[in-house]
Formats: sequence, structure tokens, C-alpha cells
Amino acid sequence: MKIAVRTFIRERAWEKYRNPKDLAESICIEAAELLQLFQWIESEESSEFKTNPSKLARVQEELADVVIYCLSMADTFGVDLARAIFEKIKLNTKKYPVHLYKGKAYFTRQRNNFK
Amino acid sequence: MKIAVRTFIRERAWEKYRNPKDLAESICIEAAELLQLFQWIESEESSEFKTNPSKLARVQEELADVVIYCLSMADTFGVDLARAIFEKIKLNTKKYPVHLYKGKAYFTRQRNNFK
Amino acid sequence: MKIAVRTFIRERAWEKYRNPKDLAESICIEAAELLQLFQWIESEESSEFKTNPSKLARVQEELADVVIYCLSMADTFGVDLARAIFEKIKLNTKKYPVHLYKGKAYFTRQRNNFK
Amino acid sequence: MKIAVRTFIRERAWEKYRNPKDLAESICIEAAELLQLFQWIESEESSEFKTNPSKLARVQEELADVVIYCLSMADTFGVDLARAIFEKIKLNTKKYPVHLYKGKAYFTRQRNNFK
Repeated sequence: MKIAVRTFIRERAWEKYRNPKDLAESICIEAAELLQLFQWIESEESSEFKTNPSKLARVQEELADVVIYCLSMADTFGVDLARAIFEKIKLNTKKYPVHLYKGKAYFTRQRNNFK
Repeated sequence: MKIAVRTFIRERAWEKYRNPKDLAESICIEAAELLQLFQWIESEESSEFKTNPSKLARVQEELADVVIYCLSMADTFGVDLARAIFEKIKLNTKKYPVHLYKGKAYFTRQRNNFK
Repeated sequence: MKIAVRTFIRERAWEKYRNPKDLAESICIEAAELLQLFQWIESEESSEFKTNPSKLARVQEELADVVIYCLSMADTFGVDLARAIFEKIKLNTKKYPVHLYKGKAYFTRQRNNFK
Repeated sequence: MKIAVRTFIRERAWEKYRNPKDLAESICIEAAELLQLFQWIESEESSEFKTNPSKLARVQEELADVVIYCLSMADTFGVDLARAIFEKIKLNTKKYPVHLYKGKAYFTRQRNNFK
């Protein structure tokens, strides 16, 4: 996967554009395009995309765009993305112990946002 | 990786918060936190993070946050993220042929933005 | 308002950081902090913030942050933001005629996103 | 300005879509479209838009989109946006005293991001 992204970039000599600042901007831009698919609709409705092949195809495409730029940034920095994810999950597992947070994400999150 | 994310969610009974609309918002929010690491600095400077372990650790963490939510959305929709990425790269390979786009991302992009 | 923003920047000699690219990043970052206040909650619930003074104060602060950077960018480019807004509303008035779009934003929007 | 935005919404009976959560998403999406105009270009280059009327027109349009949604959210919550901005600038004036922060935004910001 990492190799496929890197080859695509190299073949086009696009490395010069691949500085981390621009990649971070691109991740933001693609994330907003993904969000746009769910703009003005209810949360429950967004789950129904699962049964709509054309909407699901659009989600898949935008989701791929976000992750391709993430892989590209990881590659630029020589970061092992899979290992980074496992380490972050391990961190979150300590931060949000099951016995305290079961079914309580919401209240916690709100408290954090309004501290 | 997918399994690790899914287990973390299940153990905390957080599935109810995992609707695609809120996940798309979360991807956006985490992407902006990643971008914040490169706010107010020059593009070239952002590349120098590579040699700064504490900055690189922060990048790694925020990058993991973005991709964890992407994996979570893929899981919600039953989307195979690795396949989605390969398909998107195949599409981009056709859309940006090497002989036309070599070293020219910039001009093209600009033209698109201002069409 | 414009003057207050400009004076604040000048007094601190921060003009050098005020290039449009970084300002656009900052608008994105502050917009995501605003969105974070509504993360993981239902749409209807977000309307109830109106009666919660501490939540309303947080919204007010984040909203101000977004618009301060917008004013700063307008100032950098010598753009009259009030006039820009009126022109855009005039454009939208033509683009979305009342007799076609009354109560129909949703479907239209969706059609656009999935064209 | 506030009145112009409100009238546009009312005429189309779009109030039902104007919940704060969706408005916050829209601010994010429009902010990302603004950022897209500066994607893949250098900071100094972004300042040159000033002398390019077609690029400046695009900036003006996207900037208006962001602020229209901000005005719409302020209206929904009955918030006086002008007052909110003045209060935030007053807060920032205390938080970043001239004698400490003159010409030093950069380092401070970085320190904050990596604390």
C-alpha cells in the first residue's frame, strides 16, 4: 500500500510538492470533502448509506483520498503508520479504561470540550 | 489493525456514537489538529520535523488519530480500506498520466481551483 | 471591527505571519475547534446550547476566532468583507430561486454531492 | 448583513436545516474550500493573489461563504457576532501582551503545540 502510493508520486516527480505542511492541508481538504457527503443529513440517515451502492462508492473514494495523503505523510517522515496506530490504541486503552468509560463517551467528551 | 480498532470500540460500548456523520466530523477535527502542528511555519521547515523526535512523536500521534477514525468508518460501512486505496490509485494513474503530469502537479492543480 | 483586528496584529508585529496561506490554515483549524463543540451529539441537541450559558460562551469564543482570521485575511487582500457577503448572497439568490428551492435544500445538496 | 442572511434562509424555508451542528460542519467545509485555493503553493506566492483579479475573486467568494455560515450560526443562537469579536480581541490582548509577544508569535505557538 505504502509502496503503491510512493511509486505513484515518484513516477510523476511530485516529491517536491510533498512537504508535510502541504500534505497536512491536503488531509484537511479531503476530510472536509468526506464530511460534505454527510452535510445536512441526520446521523441515523448517514448509516443508511450502507445499502446505497452509489453513495457508498463516493464514501469509499473520499476515505481513500484521506488515507492516501496520510500514507504519503508517513512515508515522508519515515513513520510506520501501522505501528503508530497500535501505539495510539494502546495509549487510548489506558486513558479510557473500560470500567469507567463503558457507554459514556459522550458525557466525557462534552466535559472535555467545555472545561 | 481493523480488529484492534473494532475491539477498542466494542469493549467500551461506543458503537452508538460511531455513526458515519460523527465519524466524518471526527476525521475533520483530527486532521485540523495535525495541520495545527504545521501552522505558522514554512513548508521547508515542516520537513525538518524528521530530525526532531518530540515533534515527530506528535505528528505520529495525530496521524494515527486520523487513520483510526478512517478505519472505524470503513468498518462501519464494511468497506475494505486497502482495496479502496488501490482502486483510487489506479483511478489517479489514469487521470494523471506520467507523460503529461511529470513535475506539473502545481499548474494543473491551480488551473482546477480557478476554473 | 476590521480596525481592531489590524491594530492587534500591528502592535505585536505579527504581520509577517499573516500570509494568506497560513491564515487559510488558521480559519480551518478554528472552524474544526468550533465543530468539536458539537462532536458526538445529535443535531437537535446542538440547538439546546442556546439555553446553556457556559456552552453558548464557548460557541461565541470559537465563532469569534473563525471570523477574526477571516477579517484578517480580508484585510491582507484589501477585500471589503461586507460587500463580498452581499455579492455572494445576491449570487445565491439567483442560483437558488425561491419557487424551486423552498424547503428543498436537502435533496438538491445531496444530488450535488453524488453527481 | 445579518438581516440579509436571515431573509435568504427564511424565503427558502431552510431554517430546519440550520441546526448548529450542521452549520458548524458547513463552516468547516467552506474553510477547507478556501484553503484549497492555497494548496501546493508557497506562503509568499499566496500573497501575490492580491494582484490577480480572478484569484482574488475566488478568495472573496470562499471567504464570504465561511462568514455567511458564521453569521447564520450567530443568528441561530442570538449571538451578537461583532460584540463576540471585540470581547475575543480584548481577551487576546491580555493573553498576548505586546511587551512579551512582539514579533514572537511563531515560537510561542510552536511551544504550545508541542507541550
